[in-house]
Amino acid sequence: MSSWGSDIKISIFGESHGNGIGVVIDGLPAGEKLSFEEIYIQMARRAPGKDKTATPRLEKDLPRILSGILNDTTTGAPLCAVIDNTNTRSQDYGNVMSCPRPGHADYTGNIRYKGFNDIRGGGHFSGRLTAPLVFAGAVCEQILRHRGIRIAGHICSVGNIKDTRFDPVDIPDELIDRLNTASFGLIDQSKEEPMRNLIEKCRKELDSIGGTVECAITGMPAGAGSPMFDGIENIISSIVFGIPAVKGIEFGAGFSVSEMRGSENNDEFYYDGDMVRTRTNNHGGILGGISSGMPIIFRTAIKPTPSVARRQNTVDFVEHKDTVLEIHGRHDPCIVPRAVPVVEAAAAVAVINLLAQS
Amino acid sequence: MSSWGSDIKISIFGESHGNGIGVVIDGLPAGEKLSFEEIYIQMARRAPGKDKTATPRLEKDLPRILSGILNDTTTGAPLCAVIDNTNTRSQDYGNVMSCPRPGHADYTGNIRYKGFNDIRGGGHFSGRLTAPLVFAGAVCEQILRHRGIRIAGHICSVGNIKDTRFDPVDIPDELIDRLNTASFGLIDQSKEEPMRNLIEKCRKELDSIGGTVECAITGMPAGAGSPMFDGIENIISSIVFGIPAVKGIEFGAGFSVSEMRGSENNDEFYYDGDMVRTRTNNHGGILGGISSGMPIIFRTAIKPTPSVARRQNTVDFVEHKDTVLEIHGRHDPCIVPRAVPVVEAAAAVAVINLLAQS
Amino acid sequence: MSSWGSDIKISIFGESHGNGIGVVIDGLPAGEKLSFEEIYIQMARRAPGKDKTATPRLEKDLPRILSGILNDTTTGAPLCAVIDNTNTRSQDYGNVMSCPRPGHADYTGNIRYKGFNDIRGGGHFSGRLTAPLVFAGAVCEQILRHRGIRIAGHICSVGNIKDTRFDPVDIPDELIDRLNTASFGLIDQSKEEPMRNLIEKCRKELDSIGGTVECAITGMPAGAGSPMFDGIENIISSIVFGIPAVKGIEFGAGFSVSEMRGSENNDEFYYDGDMVRTRTNNHGGILGGISSGMPIIFRTAIKPTPSVARRQNTVDFVEHKDTVLEIHGRHDPCIVPRAVPVVEAAAAVAVINLLAQS
Amino acid sequence: MSSWGSDIKISIFGESHGNGIGVVIDGLPAGEKLSFEEIYIQMARRAPGKDKTATPRLEKDLPRILSGILNDTTTGAPLCAVIDNTNTRSQDYGNVMSCPRPGHADYTGNIRYKGFNDIRGGGHFSGRLTAPLVFAGAVCEQILRHRGIRIAGHICSVGNIKDTRFDPVDIPDELIDRLNTASFGLIDQSKEEPMRNLIEKCRKELDSIGGTVECAITGMPAGAGSPMFDGIENIISSIVFGIPAVKGIEFGAGFSVSEMRGSENNDEFYYDGDMVRTRTNNHGGILGGISSGMPIIFRTAIKPTPSVARRQNTVDFVEHKDTVLEIHGRHDPCIVPRAVPVVEAAAAVAVINLLAQS
Repeated sequence: MSSWGSDIKISIFGESHGNGIGVVIDGLPAGEKLSFEEIYIQMARRAPGKDKTATPRLEKDLPRILSGILNDTTTGAPLCAVIDNTNTRSQDYGNVMSCPRPGHADYTGNIRYKGFNDIRGGGHFSGRLTAPLVFAGAVCEQILRHRGIRIAGHICSVGNIKDTRFDPVDIPDELIDRLNTASFGLIDQSKEEPMRNLIEKCRKELDSIGGTVECAITGMPAGAGSPMFDGIENIISSIVFGIPAVKGIEFGAGFSVSEMRGSENNDEFYYDGDMVRTRTNNHGGILGGISSGMPIIFRTAIKPTPSVARRQNTVDFVEHKDTVLEIHGRHDPCIVPRAVPVVEAAAAVAVINLLAQS
Repeated sequence: MSSWGSDIKISIFGESHGNGIGVVIDGLPAGEKLSFEEIYIQMARRAPGKDKTATPRLEKDLPRILSGILNDTTTGAPLCAVIDNTNTRSQDYGNVMSCPRPGHADYTGNIRYKGFNDIRGGGHFSGRLTAPLVFAGAVCEQILRHRGIRIAGHICSVGNIKDTRFDPVDIPDELIDRLNTASFGLIDQSKEEPMRNLIEKCRKELDSIGGTVECAITGMPAGAGSPMFDGIENIISSIVFGIPAVKGIEFGAGFSVSEMRGSENNDEFYYDGDMVRTRTNNHGGILGGISSGMPIIFRTAIKPTPSVARRQNTVDFVEHKDTVLEIHGRHDPCIVPRAVPVVEAAAAVAVINLLAQS
Repeated sequence: MSSWGSDIKISIFGESHGNGIGVVIDGLPAGEKLSFEEIYIQMARRAPGKDKTATPRLEKDLPRILSGILNDTTTGAPLCAVIDNTNTRSQDYGNVMSCPRPGHADYTGNIRYKGFNDIRGGGHFSGRLTAPLVFAGAVCEQILRHRGIRIAGHICSVGNIKDTRFDPVDIPDELIDRLNTASFGLIDQSKEEPMRNLIEKCRKELDSIGGTVECAITGMPAGAGSPMFDGIENIISSIVFGIPAVKGIEFGAGFSVSEMRGSENNDEFYYDGDMVRTRTNNHGGILGGISSGMPIIFRTAIKPTPSVARRQNTVDFVEHKDTVLEIHGRHDPCIVPRAVPVVEAAAAVAVINLLAQS
Repeated sequence: MSSWGSDIKISIFGESHGNGIGVVIDGLPAGEKLSFEEIYIQMARRAPGKDKTATPRLEKDLPRILSGILNDTTTGAPLCAVIDNTNTRSQDYGNVMSCPRPGHADYTGNIRYKGFNDIRGGGHFSGRLTAPLVFAGAVCEQILRHRGIRIAGHICSVGNIKDTRFDPVDIPDELIDRLNTASFGLIDQSKEEPMRNLIEKCRKELDSIGGTVECAITGMPAGAGSPMFDGIENIISSIVFGIPAVKGIEFGAGFSVSEMRGSENNDEFYYDGDMVRTRTNNHGGILGGISSGMPIIFRTAIKPTPSVARRQNTVDFVEHKDTVLEIHGRHDPCIVPRAVPVVEAAAAVAVINLLAQS
């Protein structure tokens, strides 16, 4: 299903080469004034074609609002935004039907939908479907900001080149402001050049490269989320894995807790004036599924773009034999920079639901 | 919420020192013959008190079936199993009310439930609540086995001592059979002694240690799961994070994809007779959220038990000041071995829902 | 499924002649002090055996609380209540297996559950399963009362004998108080004797009789509920049809609107001090699915008990032929009086969910 | 919420005078060939402007398909259909803001959405929002027909003029075929003239009139639906009350069961060849929430259009005083004929979900 959420639900639709893609957001509070300028900035951060790290396909990706907004303010009715599909070159994908691309959903989609799914450009599995998610996230992010909650992500790594991580107990608003408008979001901006060089190297070698995205949520009041299956980790992970290419997620100290002692991993409480805080934040702002008031921090693993221009072995459904495939067309050698606003968007939709439940 | 699932729903209830804990499983297919002997074996694998790596608290943990079963066969009505709480020593936890234990949900639970939650023994946040999950998983696992689907987990690491991982393209039934009854489940059994030594060392040092659990699902037909938010990763992660102490999850090659090239990460398809398979399995049996027919493999990070006997800094709610806490009572220095059947159980409940939706 | 609710979920389990029946209520607010005395009064109103209008089967039906309550106060964890089954005489139902009783779910249950459902005493379809619903409703009703919301039902008719209906714009608390403890709840108490006479007549004629229940909810703030599918009518009806024997529901003027003119049906607004009210209440307190602040009023049709002692034609599954059936055992000639607290309970569970969503 | 469904979900969006209205249908099976000609016929049955019984507002109401369809066949991806809003005359509704129209959702919508909802033309509460529901229903209806399930409705009554009801045990396909294309659907066509005369009389008297719609579902296999809260009555009623103006629903003999004896109401089983059937159908094809294989039959009460041209008393929010309102604009004196395809559509969406769950 391409629907998610309990109190605030999103329903994403569209296929890469169909008539349009978009999202319905149901359950938004009425009376929230939105800046569409800011929403379009978020969509531009995700959009391809900005520079050499991304595909040259040009998209406006500016959504038309069909409902739910009057005078730039939410009416409380479902908000529907539609992005028309234009500039599609279907012939680039002419051989996909018979030969599933390794690492793509071509094969599994074919089985799942008995061969009836629209495979042009990846169809409903296309990364282009993250555009409506970014739209929905940008709407939710503004509503959260009205309540003092901020969300920011950065490129935590590309290949083996690592950015500095968030200071888990102190994430200043200025950093969030800067990251929220960055197209190549880094904490340590000196890492941009080596990362871009690595990506360019992969492009020249007809290859691609993976990476990680780190995301932080600040201002979350203590006490949001529920134990067991409606915990913050459950809810964030259940939407974040909706982003194509995500293969892992970890909260707080994440996988490194597996090598830690309890005495080392436990975050001690202390009073900071009237507020209870922890001196470290290995728990990533979440204990027992519930927010502690410390920043919520998570990282996701993004796999390298499967569309590489090299020759690859695959099968031919029609001929029923093994074969060799060469993918043409326009592809990012690294989608990690563009994945940052998508991860933030997923977090925003998750958090607005968590707030509604508390 | 302590409820999970769409077609087959579980609703877990109970507090560590209340009258009983249990689970309602709603939506099970009728006519499934169950071996309760096998269910109890799974519960014994999770139960504490078997050896020095676990807490000495003795529990029978044998559930009474209130409904949903006639002649050892599912009737189709909701199955309710109750485990009575006995042998609780509440006085061990006498100072928890005022002083939240670092790394526990004491603080967040107190905020979330305004101080009304039952804190004795961790209340509803207790690891003991995984017993009904194991029960539910053992029921689902048998029903899945009737359909050719097998699930097995092992201790993938304790601290920095690592077990061999599953061969991602070939997981023999014999290995699954062995792991399914192991109380200290390892692929490379030579790792048991060093792991036990490390755990014992942590105990002596009044400390605890984390680890990882790897879980594999074989026999899953291609085409299960849905794109975007009802993908296999979404659904498995949304239940697995319901297990206390899990701080991360990764599928297939997981976080290591972030350092891989596309040419390296892509799993090439080939015909194995009439069946399409992949030669490698970095995708962990999942592409676009949908099963490929290859084994589904994931790993979870388990944090070290927060209950360590060392003195720790925390706050005192009542006195409204910083203070020092010493935790008494019975605690596992390492819960990873007991977490294995819990992770398998969560996977089983997830997979039976995935099947029902396909 | 025997689960219902979004923010506050109930999961009902049990079969008439199994080990026990009960309910898990998940999502209750913490810190609500409950009177279990009052809960038991509600359960007694539903329980059989009080007088000649009901079955002589004696049940304690007193639930044991397994979780979610400490010091008579909700902890916020799932509340599980179990009622043990005792005093069951399975031999009374010995011939049901092969011959489905007309008007019962024997036939449909057999098809749905492939013959594996527990048919003794109606199994999971038994009216006895309304006991845990009354428990859940009584819990919710007390929490609602803390917020100024009251719920009351009465026997609106038995056969063609009609009680006075609620005054739709003025339902005094004294009436609600009286109805809330009545075992044969009527607005016009002079109707008790003719109704009891009719019921007794049906018993003597080895027959049964239907009726209607009217239910009112007062104190509901304006603005609860949502348009389209999460409207108050949708939500109340989706739980009320979970009560066996309900075949219809109508809100406000209900089916009589079909013969009305718009000028007659429209309820005019006026200011009553600062409050907007309507002079009539044909809309039953609901416009566009949302509460208007006027009393919410609905009526349900209750079919006559299908278990009549007369000989009836049916089929024999085993012999695969038409046959004649004579039902023995203990049966109410009229379940309408006992249905009143069940309808109230369903309304209470619905309303607490509606409030949580607003 | 304007979202409904579990396995096949619909999410309806739009406001009467916004940019467009529409629906996303998520979870449809792939590979279903659809006739869009037939879908448009259903939409035309609902559309206004066909004759004097309906409003003169002219709408094309032809939806554009944005996704989910390739070569007139479902792809399995979410199907989104958008209907552009044109020909809106907002000035007709100029005085609604301050003075809520009696019988409309103006007042409750204002409270629910804090005055931010789009009130032009009824906004999201407009009957126009039933157009996307009819679209969704027409899609589901074709898929159901591929599986041998048929759905038909008729005008059961207008005011006190009654059509013949369905023969509850025998509903021929020819009747269904005729009703499925009728714009004024009746079983006894001789009732058209008196009904039209009554409607015209109401128009001349600046008034409106209510009625009932009866709907039948044939070909439903026995065993669909579940006990308690996922029964057929629960599921159908929870969507049908999403149709504006519906104030009651009854299944089978409905409210008349309240005056019946058990011996009279019970439907006796018999063998019709190998098939178990009932000689009567007071149960409306549903026992214990589960289909019996007999036709499923229900009736809904439709209130008279609240927009009547007569002067009515109401309040003025701005002036904070009682006032008198005169509604101008274009309004149906009777929406019952147009409600028929809407009720059928709701039934189709309900039934496709019921099938998916069985």
